[in-house]
Amino acid sequence: MGLADASKRVLLGRKLRSSQLGETLLPKRIALPVFASDALSSVAYAPDEVFIMLSIAGATSYVFSPWIGVAVALVMAAVIASYRQTVHAYPSGGGDYEVASVNLGPTAGTTVASALLVDYVLTVAVSISSGSQYAAAAIPFLSGHEVLFASGLVVLLMALNLRGIRESGSYFALPTYLFMIAIIGMALYGGFRWFTGTLPQVESADLSIEPRLGFEEPLTQFAMIFLLARAFSSGCAALTGVEAISNGVPAFRKPKSDNAAATLLMLGLIAITMMMSVILLAREMGLRYVDPHELDRLRTAAGAPLPDGYDQHTVIAQIAGALFADFPPGFYFVVTLTGVILVLAANTAFNGFPVLGSILAKDGFAPRALGSRGDRLAYSNGIVFLAVTAIVLIVAFDAQTTRLIQLYIVGVFVSFNLSQLGMIRHWTRHLATEKDPARRRKMQQSRVINAVGLCFTAVVLVIVLVTKFLEGAWITILAMLAAFFVMRSIRRHYDRVAGELAAEEDDKVLPTRVHAIVLVSKVHKPTLRALAYAKASRPNVLEAVCVSTEAAETDRLLEAWDRRNIDVPLKVLHSPYRELIKPIVDYAVEIRRANPRGVVAVYIPEYVVGHWWEQLLHNQSALRLKGRLLFTPGVMVTSVPYQLRSSAVALEREDRSMTRVRPGDLRRGRVSDETPDRVSSRKP
Amino acid sequence: MGLADASKRVLLGRKLRSSQLGETLLPKRIALPVFASDALSSVAYAPDEVFIMLSIAGATSYVFSPWIGVAVALVMAAVIASYRQTVHAYPSGGGDYEVASVNLGPTAGTTVASALLVDYVLTVAVSISSGSQYAAAAIPFLSGHEVLFASGLVVLLMALNLRGIRESGSYFALPTYLFMIAIIGMALYGGFRWFTGTLPQVESADLSIEPRLGFEEPLTQFAMIFLLARAFSSGCAALTGVEAISNGVPAFRKPKSDNAAATLLMLGLIAITMMMSVILLAREMGLRYVDPHELDRLRTAAGAPLPDGYDQHTVIAQIAGALFADFPPGFYFVVTLTGVILVLAANTAFNGFPVLGSILAKDGFAPRALGSRGDRLAYSNGIVFLAVTAIVLIVAFDAQTTRLIQLYIVGVFVSFNLSQLGMIRHWTRHLATEKDPARRRKMQQSRVINAVGLCFTAVVLVIVLVTKFLEGAWITILAMLAAFFVMRSIRRHYDRVAGELAAEEDDKVLPTRVHAIVLVSKVHKPTLRALAYAKASRPNVLEAVCVSTEAAETDRLLEAWDRRNIDVPLKVLHSPYRELIKPIVDYAVEIRRANPRGVVAVYIPEYVVGHWWEQLLHNQSALRLKGRLLFTPGVMVTSVPYQLRSSAVALEREDRSMTRVRPGDLRRGRVSDETPDRVSSRKP
Repeated sequence: MGLADASKRVLLGRKLRSSQLGETLLPKRIALPVFASDALSSVAYAPDEVFIMLSIAGATSYVFSPWIGVAVALVMAAVIASYRQTVHAYPSGGGDYEVASVNLGPTAGTTVASALLVDYVLTVAVSISSGSQYAAAAIPFLSGHEVLFASGLVVLLMALNLRGIRESGSYFALPTYLFMIAIIGMALYGGFRWFTGTLPQVESADLSIEPRLGFEEPLTQFAMIFLLARAFSSGCAALTGVEAISNGVPAFRKPKSDNAAATLLMLGLIAITMMMSVILLAREMGLRYVDPHELDRLRTAAGAPLPDGYDQHTVIAQIAGALFADFPPGFYFVVTLTGVILVLAANTAFNGFPVLGSILAKDGFAPRALGSRGDRLAYSNGIVFLAVTAIVLIVAFDAQTTRLIQLYIVGVFVSFNLSQLGMIRHWTRHLATEKDPARRRKMQQSRVINAVGLCFTAVVLVIVLVTKFLEGAWITILAMLAAFFVMRSIRRHYDRVAGELAAEEDDKVLPTRVHAIVLVSKVHKPTLRALAYAKASRPNVLEAVCVSTEAAETDRLLEAWDRRNIDVPLKVLHSPYRELIKPIVDYAVEIRRANPRGVVAVYIPEYVVGHWWEQLLHNQSALRLKGRLLFTPGVMVTSVPYQLRSSAVALEREDRSMTRVRPGDLRRGRVSDETPDRVSSRKP
Repeated sequence: MGLADASKRVLLGRKLRSSQLGETLLPKRIALPVFASDALSSVAYAPDEVFIMLSIAGATSYVFSPWIGVAVALVMAAVIASYRQTVHAYPSGGGDYEVASVNLGPTAGTTVASALLVDYVLTVAVSISSGSQYAAAAIPFLSGHEVLFASGLVVLLMALNLRGIRESGSYFALPTYLFMIAIIGMALYGGFRWFTGTLPQVESADLSIEPRLGFEEPLTQFAMIFLLARAFSSGCAALTGVEAISNGVPAFRKPKSDNAAATLLMLGLIAITMMMSVILLAREMGLRYVDPHELDRLRTAAGAPLPDGYDQHTVIAQIAGALFADFPPGFYFVVTLTGVILVLAANTAFNGFPVLGSILAKDGFAPRALGSRGDRLAYSNGIVFLAVTAIVLIVAFDAQTTRLIQLYIVGVFVSFNLSQLGMIRHWTRHLATEKDPARRRKMQQSRVINAVGLCFTAVVLVIVLVTKFLEGAWITILAMLAAFFVMRSIRRHYDRVAGELAAEEDDKVLPTRVHAIVLVSKVHKPTLRALAYAKASRPNVLEAVCVSTEAAETDRLLEAWDRRNIDVPLKVLHSPYRELIKPIVDYAVEIRRANPRGVVAVYIPEYVVGHWWEQLLHNQSALRLKGRLLFTPGVMVTSVPYQLRSSAVALEREDRSMTRVRPGDLRRGRVSDETPDRVSSRKP
């Protein structure tokens, strides 16, 4: 039925597919939620970090919070503008890695790749930790069990991705848009209440904050600047994830680059609006927020310590709680959607990892199996690795966003910097050859934008390194170094192998003679088929070989051989120690020695069964023999399979696993909501 | 160097080996310790169980202990006499399984096999639990941690056997002989002290025992008989392991059967002597011994309960402690060797399991891989299974020999019974044809011995079933049933496959045409070699095929193809979804459809690397493709390996693992203390 169609489809595939792929690509309204969840979700924790850092010098320094928000917004604007250049210049979806590799060489590319890899782990750890804090705000029962809950969530995400959930546009669109509505709606309502003078105070508003020891007023100018710098660098967590679109350009509808740039702009505007709203509302509603490790610095208005069980809720939860004090569904709407968006953000890491892996694999920095779609084992290992390291971080840092954030931003800004630097080189290189004045002007303009972006991100990177190195960034840098060296050695290995494999002129020499041996244990269908196939390949010598571990059995075989009048000589190899493999290998080696320019062709009859437990009962020796013969020079090994009835089961299972969706497919613009087969059968 | 020798050795192997094997077989003085450790070790716990059972009715019933010892000794004598007939009639080493299969049919054989399998698990659990009790007697620190210690010992044994320790004669001989010296020496010394009237009392001698509730004197006759029956059936634990020699006849020197029978007699005499000595000494020295769960039934002479921390030591430990009160090294010598012999006994299960497995595999009741020496995976799984189930039992029964013993003896006596019954049939069958009166007399005599053996063992089996069914024997019976049905279904599966595979007359028809396709990804040495090999097999059609997942890469390949003037057409299969496998499979299916009487030969160039991490980086696709093509009818798959320099590492590793000793080799008379290679090079 579909077999001829199927083969035609394979042979003529490319053309048919390209036209179809267009239909499965993402319109802007779907692309925005798919790529935005990571970037937008940071509004759930970035403002909190700003307030925590400022609180070190007491609540009075909260006056700076809007300015820090503005500074972060400025950096974000610069970065967004820069990436709008990138999506135009590199529409292939390689993102920062491609920009750095092409313009700054493979070392820079590998550095970016290791930064991104480490970042994927941290995205999972930070988002899920923050998400579990929101869950604890909505479900008091979870309070105090955040680590367990967060680890459970990571395991759940891992399981879903291992099973291969279809990452579909709609599955991102709804919660992301609802989240935008929730936060911006809350901001508008808060603005209205403020305008009407009825803005309520948050639950922590009547508390006071003791400055941390050594940070009592008046602060030295240096201490103050360092404090603001720390608050700013923590606030820059809001920038993580904006680069996602530059990796996903191929998934956009045409004109891809324009659509991607427009989506990026949209994303930037929404993110800045959300962050500023939250900071301003929190400030106006009298928020008091400290490091959860230092809750004892919070005092009642009278200066007395708080009762033991005090639970500090996240900033958005406090704002929503106060604004919707009389309307609990409003509070639960905001908090639930914030939690959901954080889980979606963590899921993007599970999807981004295989995409980056396949790009790295293509360049020889990662195992090649990662490059071909559908290597289940390679994908699974990556996903498990991601989940396990994230859980290790969550447990080690007690699921506290504040402490994980210290590790987070280094990687992002390393790749921002190298990417901007690469873009400047890109434009400079193109300017050297471009003659058209209009395009030259445009290029120069882009170069200026990227240069401004580089300045901003370089300053931020320095601030982050200075303020966070001892707080945890050193861990990130160590992990990046480790990833870097692993990738380098993989590449070196592939290069060495390629050198060893490079073809030379005399490699085309034909072997002079083929000596075929067919392994025989019984006279049954698979054996007869293997003999027939071996005969059909007309070798110079053809003989059947059996290993005799027991005289009686061998006699029965010889008798059956004679009875059937098989016209191939049967040679018996004696094996007193009952080994099966060594005698065959030794015999093949001996034949080859007698005729070093010839080839030994070993034909192995195999029968194919379906169930895993059937496989345990068969073919173990054939498998081991094949493995061993691979190491024997001048031997080629031919499996002649004989399909038993039960093998149909396994065939179905294989095919099912081959058509399964892999994480990251959507981001590569590779899979629609339908399976390819159904698509093609609908359009004959 | 040794390559020609090696191949000659393989071809001429059988003759050379048979003569050499003689030298590596076991003389009686080594065979005794090798096969006796399991049987002799039971003296470490069988007397204890007798005293525990009798103690239920209070210490007065200890008067029956010598009589129970005599009854057990009688049964043992009968069993030993029976097995002496078996080793003469079945010198091939199949033991009870062979006897039952040959004479009573496969159902009886499978029943015996499942009994033996369950028994191996229990041998490990009981011996190690008892061993850890001895260890606790010698090292007070271990008291209370017996479960942990016992589980650790099992894990250690498992690890040693997985690594493949060489089970050599000397490694058994020394501790087993020392153990005999220890126990018999202790008995002689005790006899001397008794004779001189200076026999000391054991530590528990001045205690009294409260009868268990409901067993206060005077007992009804029925209760007394039931009690004695229970004590007797527990004492029969001393018989476990006597059948080991009948499985090991091939490992004896010639005349094998005579030597085996002599060793068996020797074993019986020693075992009976030891057991009787221990029981008599314990009785004379005033032992008081109860179920460790009911230590509160022990009272001081005044009738007061014992202090909380009282620790009841095993019978041999109490006797040794009292006899060697002034000479601690004597005590430690006895206790340590008893512990060592128990561990050796447990190890025999690890060695016996693969032996039985290979026999079952030959008959199709176990995965065939178990039948060929050196299938590491199959052996390892069996050893891990044995260890894990033993640990489960140890943990579930709290490492208490008394409770495990209830499960133990059923299996042994099931196989004793079926084996004796089989032997009676065997003699009856032979008597029907035998004419020579002298031999007839001998056969009739053997039949009488086996009949007496059957009577004894049948009575014991009934007693064991009646007294122990509710105490735990039902678990054993369930496990035996499970094993039985698994073996039966494996056999049914093999039979079904054999039916499907049976050759018919038209199976010899040759394929009309071979269409060869060589898979190409790059033009390098492996590809050129695969092309050359494929050409040498002169197919009717030869073409190279590449899967194009990326246009640029394919263009480079086509260009390289032209540049090198390769005279084979290169066909490009487009794969828009980047799949590698599906296009190839579909293409092969299409070719085959066009010519259903032809064959598709797929040549896969592979390069072979050495380290495991290198293997991760290569050949994943080739492996999966080969797996998938096995399910495609009419396709044969040829691997053309290209050995990279690093593959030498893996080759060495492979060879090392192939010459490794496997558990059970010694018992099959298969391996000497030297590796086969060294033996043959010493004797040119």
